[in-house]
Amino acid sequence: MITFDEAFNKVMQFPMDLGVEAVELSNATGRVLAENIVADRDFPPFNRATKDGIAIHFNSLENEITHFKIEAVLSAGMAQQELKDTGNCVEIMTGAVLPKNADTIIMYEDTKIENGVATIFKKPIIGQEIHRKGSDVKKGTTLLSKHMMIGAAEIGVLASVGKSIVLVNKLPKICVISTGNELVEVHETPLPHQIRRSNTLSLFAALKNHGIEAVQVHLLDDKKVIREQLSKLMEAYDVLLVSGGVSKGKFDFLPEVLELLGVEKVFHRVAQRPGKPFWFGTQQKTKTLVFSFPGNPVSTYANYHVYFLPWLYLTLQLKKPEKYVLLERPILIKPSLTRFIQVRITNKMGSLWAVPVQENGSGDLTSLANSDGFICLRPREKAYEQGEAIPFIPTK
Amino acid sequence: MITFDEAFNKVMQFPMDLGVEAVELSNATGRVLAENIVADRDFPPFNRATKDGIAIHFNSLENEITHFKIEAVLSAGMAQQELKDTGNCVEIMTGAVLPKNADTIIMYEDTKIENGVATIFKKPIIGQEIHRKGSDVKKGTTLLSKHMMIGAAEIGVLASVGKSIVLVNKLPKICVISTGNELVEVHETPLPHQIRRSNTLSLFAALKNHGIEAVQVHLLDDKKVIREQLSKLMEAYDVLLVSGGVSKGKFDFLPEVLELLGVEKVFHRVAQRPGKPFWFGTQQKTKTLVFSFPGNPVSTYANYHVYFLPWLYLTLQLKKPEKYVLLERPILIKPSLTRFIQVRITNKMGSLWAVPVQENGSGDLTSLANSDGFICLRPREKAYEQGEAIPFIPTK
Repeated sequence: MITFDEAFNKVMQFPMDLGVEAVELSNATGRVLAENIVADRDFPPFNRATKDGIAIHFNSLENEITHFKIEAVLSAGMAQQELKDTGNCVEIMTGAVLPKNADTIIMYEDTKIENGVATIFKKPIIGQEIHRKGSDVKKGTTLLSKHMMIGAAEIGVLASVGKSIVLVNKLPKICVISTGNELVEVHETPLPHQIRRSNTLSLFAALKNHGIEAVQVHLLDDKKVIREQLSKLMEAYDVLLVSGGVSKGKFDFLPEVLELLGVEKVFHRVAQRPGKPFWFGTQQKTKTLVFSFPGNPVSTYANYHVYFLPWLYLTLQLKKPEKYVLLERPILIKPSLTRFIQVRITNKMGSLWAVPVQENGSGDLTSLANSDGFICLRPREKAYEQGEAIPFIPTK
Repeated sequence: MITFDEAFNKVMQFPMDLGVEAVELSNATGRVLAENIVADRDFPPFNRATKDGIAIHFNSLENEITHFKIEAVLSAGMAQQELKDTGNCVEIMTGAVLPKNADTIIMYEDTKIENGVATIFKKPIIGQEIHRKGSDVKKGTTLLSKHMMIGAAEIGVLASVGKSIVLVNKLPKICVISTGNELVEVHETPLPHQIRRSNTLSLFAALKNHGIEAVQVHLLDDKKVIREQLSKLMEAYDVLLVSGGVSKGKFDFLPEVLELLGVEKVFHRVAQRPGKPFWFGTQQKTKTLVFSFPGNPVSTYANYHVYFLPWLYLTLQLKKPEKYVLLERPILIKPSLTRFIQVRITNKMGSLWAVPVQENGSGDLTSLANSDGFICLRPREKAYEQGEAIPFIPTK
């Protein structure tokens, strides 16, 4: 049995190079950017009015002019115009192009307009109320770097520079596999000795949050069937996420069948709780990774977040800084296992405090709904202290 | 001009009652639960083996028996069996139903099995390694309460109790409207005086994170067209999110047209930066709410998160606790406006520190991609101090 850190480091030795693909901008949210995004023009692309008012030629003020004949009204979307007589002005709207020969804008609030003539009350500063061409970004500047997650703000940037098609990292093809003869479908009424399939539905929903549309397969406890199906699934998928079938029972054929199929065991069983009987392997030929989680909900959910998600981020080259939370009360753990304890997080004046969620063994599904994630307590003799900062693995 | 708090409270006076709808479990992720979820049976539904090993009748140990003839092998998915002779045992696998007459399980590690007989090495404790029927939850217990967001863990609970169809709060029908003759589509090459439409694509992507498929409409600066289209849109949508057209320019027809269409102005202009020219109104007849944001990206994005999202949570009856972060360095603001400042958040040993993101005026789109949200600084004479806890509005 290896330690959690050994197991984690081993999993991280298998990032996948899945390549990139082009997607429509409207489908790019939640994906990881695979190209640097460069400004295709200056931003703003022209000297842009930032206020509604009048535009003048500043030097004309030297001749003590305070009345300006209005030559035209310019609005956003009009091509650049010209102030024909520098002693005159134009009315100009926010977003419009500053006309040639004008260099200063005075907002309506500081003018009075009567009979086609604007009078100004307050001496302006030369160049005021103009958002200068290229003052935000010069053409050619890198606006977004690859390996960023594309969110709503990034969509705005991509749209601004005309990226209607975006290069993103390809997502792994994933099959989520449940095992066990006791499982029935959600819509079925289970017999007294049966339970409904739920783990793989949770995993399916969790993967969807990362834009991954997984396929769900259920395997009965029959060695021949499992062997045939797994063999096909390994040809078709990059990753198999298996729930159940890796404890020591007589019908837990998975480790044996996986090895028969040429999947090399990287490790089986980790000194952790929950999630100890985790089996991880790799098939060299098909390049498939197999994450085989113990069958109970908390174990599966913990191992998905503890091992699979960091592997996914590594594969997508997405950086996720480590998170810490503060212990609300001291915890003493047995020194031989790394513990993942479900907690609820409260933000108290900018600090994150973790309160363990009452849980009833690893079969207790409802505790997952009540918690915000797991704290990771590595084995040590000394109790973890109240107020100590602890690594946190969010699940929400 | 009203204060931020006045404006916020006014918006919160217009929650909508949109009713509920039934969705398939596979489409329920990200939705808000509209029914209490009750256990339809005990969990676990039977006395369940938690280890692979043998099941015995504990009292038989009193007769100093340590060798048990194996009657049968029981696996998960089999109906309950019976230990026929209480001096014998059965082999039992994790997840299997404890047979009648058996009350204690001894894991394989503490037994030796030879010629159909199991010998135990270690005296067990009566009832050990059994996950008792109903010990997690009794039938009829409320597992999830309405007004929760349905995430991956909740999907697992819903599946366990057979909710293949779930009642969720209906989402508002939203139309995202851009205005302005200067805007062209993302795939177009803009002329020097034009820019690409980006704000409404950002809003569309942001809404999608909440499961809302908004419709996007672009309006040119033509009073008649705007009036006709807005009139139709108000019939069809619960909420109009408008970007642009509410400053003081001659072509900013929106406030006027909205009032002509019977939309009652609740307020226009808020003492805040960015996002000051925010117009908010309600049409009594069609029950449509109009959030009309200033046209620049940072203002639109700030007001969407500051006003619209809290309104959405209120409408969906979803509780979101207030978040706080600590100021990395002191900030002095002008005392008349509430400031929303873009920040990047760093988790330092369990505390969240906010560092302002370099921004270049409200036209600067890239700063949004570099920030994690806005801090909210209400006007005050005294500088905000380093280390002070400040309300935080996350955007990622």
